[in-house]
Amino acid sequence: MVSENMYNKLAELVVRKGVNVQKGQPVIINANIHDAAFVKKVVKCAYEAGAKYVSVEWSDLDLTNMAYEYQTAEVLAEVPQWKYDKTKSQHDEGACYISITSEKPGAMADADSEKMKIANMAYYSKMKDLAAYTMNNEGQWCVFGIPSYDWAKVVFPDLSDEEAYEKLGDAIFAVTRVTEDNDPVAEWTRHDEEMIGHAKKLNEYRFEKLHFTSELGTDLYVGLIEDHIWAGGGCYTPAGVFFDPNMPTEECFCMPLKTGTDGIVYASKPLDYHGKLIEDFWLRFEKGRVVEFDAKKEKEALEQLLSFDEGSSYLGEVALVPYDSPVSRSGILFFNTLYDENAACHLAFGRPYPENLAGGCDMTEEELAQHGANDSMQHEDFMIGTKDMNIDGIRKDGTVIPVFRNGNFVF
Amino acid sequence: MVSENMYNKLAELVVRKGVNVQKGQPVIINANIHDAAFVKKVVKCAYEAGAKYVSVEWSDLDLTNMAYEYQTAEVLAEVPQWKYDKTKSQHDEGACYISITSEKPGAMADADSEKMKIANMAYYSKMKDLAAYTMNNEGQWCVFGIPSYDWAKVVFPDLSDEEAYEKLGDAIFAVTRVTEDNDPVAEWTRHDEEMIGHAKKLNEYRFEKLHFTSELGTDLYVGLIEDHIWAGGGCYTPAGVFFDPNMPTEECFCMPLKTGTDGIVYASKPLDYHGKLIEDFWLRFEKGRVVEFDAKKEKEALEQLLSFDEGSSYLGEVALVPYDSPVSRSGILFFNTLYDENAACHLAFGRPYPENLAGGCDMTEEELAQHGANDSMQHEDFMIGTKDMNIDGIRKDGTVIPVFRNGNFVF
Repeated sequence: MVSENMYNKLAELVVRKGVNVQKGQPVIINANIHDAAFVKKVVKCAYEAGAKYVSVEWSDLDLTNMAYEYQTAEVLAEVPQWKYDKTKSQHDEGACYISITSEKPGAMADADSEKMKIANMAYYSKMKDLAAYTMNNEGQWCVFGIPSYDWAKVVFPDLSDEEAYEKLGDAIFAVTRVTEDNDPVAEWTRHDEEMIGHAKKLNEYRFEKLHFTSELGTDLYVGLIEDHIWAGGGCYTPAGVFFDPNMPTEECFCMPLKTGTDGIVYASKPLDYHGKLIEDFWLRFEKGRVVEFDAKKEKEALEQLLSFDEGSSYLGEVALVPYDSPVSRSGILFFNTLYDENAACHLAFGRPYPENLAGGCDMTEEELAQHGANDSMQHEDFMIGTKDMNIDGIRKDGTVIPVFRNGNFVF
Repeated sequence: MVSENMYNKLAELVVRKGVNVQKGQPVIINANIHDAAFVKKVVKCAYEAGAKYVSVEWSDLDLTNMAYEYQTAEVLAEVPQWKYDKTKSQHDEGACYISITSEKPGAMADADSEKMKIANMAYYSKMKDLAAYTMNNEGQWCVFGIPSYDWAKVVFPDLSDEEAYEKLGDAIFAVTRVTEDNDPVAEWTRHDEEMIGHAKKLNEYRFEKLHFTSELGTDLYVGLIEDHIWAGGGCYTPAGVFFDPNMPTEECFCMPLKTGTDGIVYASKPLDYHGKLIEDFWLRFEKGRVVEFDAKKEKEALEQLLSFDEGSSYLGEVALVPYDSPVSRSGILFFNTLYDENAACHLAFGRPYPENLAGGCDMTEEELAQHGANDSMQHEDFMIGTKDMNIDGIRKDGTVIPVFRNGNFVF
């Protein structure tokens, strides 16, 4: 059972190691209203770390659902200028961002997909040039989770409310590396170093492409961009502030060549796309683009994801996660990408992380595209890793080097 | 005990009668995060009434207290342009405003008064020209309350949490005229008509000044502005939408002549000024201005209230409330101005309501001042009514007409 002490340690961890709040820095927290008690702990820690101010952006999926039910598509597509100006002014002040996830997976299942697409498209279009702030790590950001009753009942539908909540809480704290007795900041420092070691080795190999195979039927080649940089275990802002954008994180990730993916891939876990849970799906790629796909559930949502904009049907990220990661070992399907992506190798459609290309963070969109990078207003991960997954790295000279065997790193 | 049904009726009352939401109108709700369950009822009612969109501005006094504790005065005084633009764009869209009060009285008692003054001054200065939207009834607005545990324990400190909460809930619903069996919309329509009748009679008398006396020691002359209009029982927007800005409301109110108040007045109830509870205070006026005052508790807060700006030590409102009003008859001191002002005659420092002057809503600030109206960035009510209060109306020709005897209207 998760104690008050562990919640205190989590709040401290997120502030000190997650975003690594600097003295005089504004802190923006995105949170659900039902998490208010915990949010206040985070706010206090942020102030104690010297935050200039802490601003909480509250949200609630019941209100979001009502908005989609009652507002017209026209109204939903209105994004007032002040919303842009607000985020812009936070960026100009050098703010850092904390997001606390705890929503019920699939909470938006009944919302009108067409309206959601229109609203999301309008929002991303308006905000497009502001997305670089976090995507390029110009300021620190951190996404992590805490349990909620709604979420717990989706993960453990057969348990009582209390049992499900406790079990989800135990799992979240375990994979976030917070225990009753440990020093989570020290534990994360050690973990980051190990991940940085993996990324270093992958960078030394200079692979041209990766070949994924699994018994599910996956047989996929993913070409890597030239001058790619494998990353993992924390990031640096241009000012040199080290932070951990995801808690948990178990991935080494890299940038695919936009036109370099060919073959078929089977998803190994469901994907929550704006509250719609897409299940049992596969995709076939030709020269980087998805040319065929199917899903047993929410195929329409998958179609919307892929057709969101031109870059949505091309890859923006490839990530290697050992099947032996704590999230995977927990055996729990969290129905939440932050967790599930750290249980399994995954790919992402859409926008890539410029940090995965040498000099990428200083490049314009055009320069990134010239280097073969994908571009999109969204970035959507989906899981492909399995217990039996094998990955070979193929170098320019044709050398084949085993990277994964049976779901885990060979080296 | 307040039933779920009564909460539903209250939500409906506020939407249909309080702000009287019009089809296609944006609705902005200010609420505390701990009231989320009830807020969702209001949001649903607003959508069902045809709201264009409903936006909830969540607040929490723990976060506000932390802001005052940790932020510097310099940071607290920064009001970003987007905040102004946001409110301005809501006004341009013709939004209406619902505020739900439930905070613990005196919740900001430990906050740094000097910082609060600086922050409030900065905020009011920045927003000054936007205040007319609600002060002049350009758009509909409604303030009402629901019980909270924190508030209940202040009102009934000797009861258990549950008993206090239930008792405060019963009182709030009673004075807001919502019962298990009634039709609150019809009840409010009847009540509004009665209040409008009182105001009509007062307008016919064309008093030059009122003379307040009570055994507490009050002996005060309040001059009324020429061409004054007594109001009460709802308002109209320029577009002709009728609404009830306060629930409860029991007052007939008017505009004092800025320089027309002389004598001494004793407050009959405490005053919550930005979370500081000012108690047992009196004020002496000369030619409209407070020239001497004292308070047994939070005198510093009273001093800040009066010195906030030039108009803060002059009156902006005089309001007559029968001692027999339901709020008064409840015998409960709510420690919340919305309720306590409707239990007793009261005055307000600062900004007047332009609707209380013939043609006032169309006048510039300069024109209002030429007519003898006060001006200020704030508007702060304080209660003076007692069981034994007598009020005489004095006409230009010297005629004295009894208005109140022993706390109630003579007519």
